[in-house]
Amino acid sequence: MDPRTYAREQRSRFLEDLQSLIRIPSVSTLPEHYADLRRAAQWLEQRLRDLGLRAWIIESDSHPIVYGEWMGAPGRPTLLCYGHYDVQPPDPLDEWQSPPFEPTVRGDSLYARGASDDKGQLMIQLCAVESWLRTAGRLPVNVKLFIEGAEALGSPRITGFIPKNKRLLKADAALVCDGMFFAPEVPALVTGLRGLVYAEVEAHGASHDLHSGQYGGAAPNALEALARIIASLRDRRGRVTIPRFYAAVRPPSPMEREAWERLPFDEQAYLTELGIDLAPGEEGYGILERRWARPTLEVHGIVGGFIGPGPKTVIPAKGVAKISMRLVPDQKPKAVLRAFTRKVQRLAPPGVRTEVRALSLADPVVVAPEEPAVRVAARAIEEVFGRGPVYMREGGSVPVVAEFINALRAPAVLMGFGLPDDRLHAPNEKFHLPNFYRGIDAVIRFLELLGEQAPSG
Amino acid sequence: MDPRTYAREQRSRFLEDLQSLIRIPSVSTLPEHYADLRRAAQWLEQRLRDLGLRAWIIESDSHPIVYGEWMGAPGRPTLLCYGHYDVQPPDPLDEWQSPPFEPTVRGDSLYARGASDDKGQLMIQLCAVESWLRTAGRLPVNVKLFIEGAEALGSPRITGFIPKNKRLLKADAALVCDGMFFAPEVPALVTGLRGLVYAEVEAHGASHDLHSGQYGGAAPNALEALARIIASLRDRRGRVTIPRFYAAVRPPSPMEREAWERLPFDEQAYLTELGIDLAPGEEGYGILERRWARPTLEVHGIVGGFIGPGPKTVIPAKGVAKISMRLVPDQKPKAVLRAFTRKVQRLAPPGVRTEVRALSLADPVVVAPEEPAVRVAARAIEEVFGRGPVYMREGGSVPVVAEFINALRAPAVLMGFGLPDDRLHAPNEKFHLPNFYRGIDAVIRFLELLGEQAPSG
Repeated sequence: MDPRTYAREQRSRFLEDLQSLIRIPSVSTLPEHYADLRRAAQWLEQRLRDLGLRAWIIESDSHPIVYGEWMGAPGRPTLLCYGHYDVQPPDPLDEWQSPPFEPTVRGDSLYARGASDDKGQLMIQLCAVESWLRTAGRLPVNVKLFIEGAEALGSPRITGFIPKNKRLLKADAALVCDGMFFAPEVPALVTGLRGLVYAEVEAHGASHDLHSGQYGGAAPNALEALARIIASLRDRRGRVTIPRFYAAVRPPSPMEREAWERLPFDEQAYLTELGIDLAPGEEGYGILERRWARPTLEVHGIVGGFIGPGPKTVIPAKGVAKISMRLVPDQKPKAVLRAFTRKVQRLAPPGVRTEVRALSLADPVVVAPEEPAVRVAARAIEEVFGRGPVYMREGGSVPVVAEFINALRAPAVLMGFGLPDDRLHAPNEKFHLPNFYRGIDAVIRFLELLGEQAPSG
Repeated sequence: MDPRTYAREQRSRFLEDLQSLIRIPSVSTLPEHYADLRRAAQWLEQRLRDLGLRAWIIESDSHPIVYGEWMGAPGRPTLLCYGHYDVQPPDPLDEWQSPPFEPTVRGDSLYARGASDDKGQLMIQLCAVESWLRTAGRLPVNVKLFIEGAEALGSPRITGFIPKNKRLLKADAALVCDGMFFAPEVPALVTGLRGLVYAEVEAHGASHDLHSGQYGGAAPNALEALARIIASLRDRRGRVTIPRFYAAVRPPSPMEREAWERLPFDEQAYLTELGIDLAPGEEGYGILERRWARPTLEVHGIVGGFIGPGPKTVIPAKGVAKISMRLVPDQKPKAVLRAFTRKVQRLAPPGVRTEVRALSLADPVVVAPEEPAVRVAARAIEEVFGRGPVYMREGGSVPVVAEFINALRAPAVLMGFGLPDDRLHAPNEKFHLPNFYRGIDAVIRFLELLGEQAPSG
């Protein structure tokens, strides 16, 4: 039987399997769910073994990693598949129309926490593997599955695992199903992710809080200093003022830029979604380019001084701000962090001392659409969905993807089947079921086409 | 018997009385102490009645006011005495060497919450009145006592009470004993208090928090906007940039300025106290002038976005800052508030909307050292302490004093007996007992000298 025919016949069971996995509330950020994370990992390990893969759980300093492999195609390429079984917290619970961990079909969609991010997309890969193994008794390529449980935490200890386990994970390409279409019925391949430098800046003025009546006018104010530092990190034209910040920025290729111009991007819909009249940002670049291919700097939080109700006249001795920079190729996180730290220290006004602490670093990623693995992914998408993918980038950072590319020197195929309105981190997360079934078909075909490629050796 | 001889003989009982009042933990900011505030008010009402004054409790929307009067000197001036029976919260409790509400004498000082601020200084006035009544059977002037219980709250509803009760409170001068010496053995009369405009600024960007990966670079950031606004409210030379902010500022008189130059101000000790290397502020003015006679602007608190531990990549939709301006004569709080609001709105970057809410307004105060009531206060101090007072201002705001001056058109004598190291709002508050006893003498003499003045009629 053809694997796609098998997949069509198994649709209702595939859906039931997905629902079983969703019912395990594997919220990685909440300690009360740690046992559920292990249950989810064991469920997946068993599922992989039932399919005939070698599979085991790898203990890490964070939540367990599920690893599985089928290496029965010597001489063929090896594909490393990535997914995560952990989900975002479900609150606020009272805004859900059906309980977050009781997956419910309404219309064409399955509603539940994790339906789209990422259990639905993870199961697409497993169902495609099953469809091959249950029909042809083999896969067209060698497959390694790397399924983590700490994605919502920023995969803090997972990224350290990858460079140390290059041999285990070695592959010719990576497949990441954890993203979305550009718009309904507009499938996409992601060719870039921004990197990240996330830091905490602490400013110190006097040795203790002072009364603003007694001292105001002749004492340092740590919060005002912090405000001045932040205000000076971007100029009036929206450009980051850190020296040589833009020096390593590689512009998008003419082909990418041309592709973006053809995208059905609706600026008015964007403004309406955000509830704003105009989208401020770096002068001279369009909204998509600013989000995908330009680095930026954002303040995420400030706290200091008196923040209770009413007036209290304190000159704060201390203030803290959380600030991040999104990076694009070929910016290097460590170099940017050093330049940022120097700039912050130079901007501190007299009487104020600053400390900069790095909280998270991630490399930016680009994948050329010309990569053979990306080309066959595009062909598989076109055959299944009836139209070729658009090439877009994502403004966010997926540290694991950067690690795959850096450590394994393999290109990543970022093929997502979610929709932009899936409400990933919000109540009533959903997954468009036609994309679940067509996604399985697309991965079945992708494995087949990739099998026709020569391995990198 | 001479009233001062009586006062000397009664010292140990005066101290016991003060200790009784201190034992009532009348913390006006903590609801669990509201019953104690009433007990303290009743204690004072009884004390005034025992002295032979007409006294009663005036209920207000805030904590009760204790009012007492002795009007048996027709044709003589009337003095309105101000004090407050509420105290600051005592925490952190574990830093107290003896419990805050068990007054303890160590060396020359009485240690307890409220010892200096303001129960000790309030009792100075009551003991002086007693010394006159128990010896001469009369006072040299008519006396009205206005003792409030909401000073630590900024006297929010008290200030409204004063203009509505001008007839009750009518007086030729006001006496406020709620301050301090310039330095040990350097008594002072305060000739100015700064006013206040305290506001909350709220900035709004997008309609909801956004993911900085997805949107960073093409969305408004409410916190960054707040930082820009704050940074633009003062220029590099420390001057407030609000239009016409300085237009109404009246420079100190040559006599005041000259007096300040003679003050034993130790700049190095000031820097050491604050733990800083230099005192930033408005260029071209000395530290004392900047704190006493120049308006200023301070940020007291900022909060917004993600402030928990670790990295979270949110673009905050909202941020709030608490900002105040200290005013000097003849700045008008309402006009400053209007100009501030307009300036903040003009500074808001594109895509960001601001709201300004006023939390507290107070007029600045100056009293000419040439006022007859101030002159006799200086003479009384000189006789008792062996040196005349220095004339200084205070940078803080006492809304009640401004109300007295505005509503009653009477000058205020600001005669404080605390010391700069009394730790008013901190653990181990103390009151220097020699100043308690000499303060009683000074007020006894002040009443006598004031009685020789003609009433304003």
